[in-house]
Amino acid sequence: MNVSDLQRQLAFLKEIDRLKSIVRLSPLIDRSRRENSAEHSWHLALYALVLAGHAAGEVDVVRVVKMLLIHDIVEIDAGDVPFHMPSTHAGQAERERLAAERIFGLLPDAQAAEFRELWFEFEAAESDDARFAKALDRFQPMLHNAATDGGTWVECEVTLEQVEARCRPPIERGAPALWAVAAQLAEEHFRERPQEP
Amino acid sequence: MNVSDLQRQLAFLKEIDRLKSIVRLSPLIDRSRRENSAEHSWHLALYALVLAGHAAGEVDVVRVVKMLLIHDIVEIDAGDVPFHMPSTHAGQAERERLAAERIFGLLPDAQAAEFRELWFEFEAAESDDARFAKALDRFQPMLHNAATDGGTWVECEVTLEQVEARCRPPIERGAPALWAVAAQLAEEHFRERPQEP
Repeated sequence: MNVSDLQRQLAFLKEIDRLKSIVRLSPLIDRSRRENSAEHSWHLALYALVLAGHAAGEVDVVRVVKMLLIHDIVEIDAGDVPFHMPSTHAGQAERERLAAERIFGLLPDAQAAEFRELWFEFEAAESDDARFAKALDRFQPMLHNAATDGGTWVECEVTLEQVEARCRPPIERGAPALWAVAAQLAEEHFRERPQEP
Repeated sequence: MNVSDLQRQLAFLKEIDRLKSIVRLSPLIDRSRRENSAEHSWHLALYALVLAGHAAGEVDVVRVVKMLLIHDIVEIDAGDVPFHMPSTHAGQAERERLAAERIFGLLPDAQAAEFRELWFEFEAAESDDARFAKALDRFQPMLHNAATDGGTWVECEVTLEQVEARCRPPIERGAPALWAVAAQLAEEHFRERPQEP
């Protein structure tokens, strides 16, 4: 490890401070404000540590935690795309890929490669680790929505059918027991708050 | 893993959402607002992943990351004590101990015990893992202060001697190379901004 490596590491750590200013659509549970992507990533890392026993496959919880800590860093350049408003951001995948190259590229080469590969693995959602990480990334906002009288479900005017169509596959694939909980919470919300025809 | 364990895990994960509302004295690097303890914990976990090669001892980076992800959770009950204003909070250690019992106690017993023990180990700062984690917790605010024309150094009216007395032991013990960087940044700041006699 030479001095220049340390300078590159510190440049990266300073740059990612900007993730704290990327605001998501999801509310905090006390509804005082919206969640930002840095604190969301912290929360998800704890979801992984606490809920690892519910993963569908054999997961390496360390890799899952790492994925979740870095999964949103690309939003510093590419912005956050609300899950229930995907069509508003054409070209997002390419913007995120370029962001991964630029931001992880601030690090010394070996670390840059490790983080880039972990991020691509998360995005591909094919490995057991990435599937579990993706499941948590979809599950946490459902818990928040249920705890805030609808949260982004209400804000984006989605139906129960849309929630199931969008959330069931990624959550059930990575953590079936968590989908059972999330489905019940969504059903309770939409039963109490019938949708307009 | 039974249903009641899962309910306890979800209760814990909902409760810790409140850490996002614990505001620290430290500014974000862009100075748009102060940092909260949840996003601070996220940032420190990345410090650990990126800077592990600079630890003084043989560290298990996974344990360090876990410690840093949970180290501030007690602030939900006990509040944050600014590092340069320690005397304002008598009885803080006891409040934090009670908070650790209550909040980690929301989890299933085995996980509660693991998190409680990790938190006590961090607080004691005697193991190599805890020393490195503590070093990062002291180093990150120094980097932020240097990047924000003084940050909490200016706000708390501390001198270079006070910064060295308070920050050098924990940082040098856990990560000597990082102290070398931090000391240089502090010296540059105080040289450009001489203190009142």
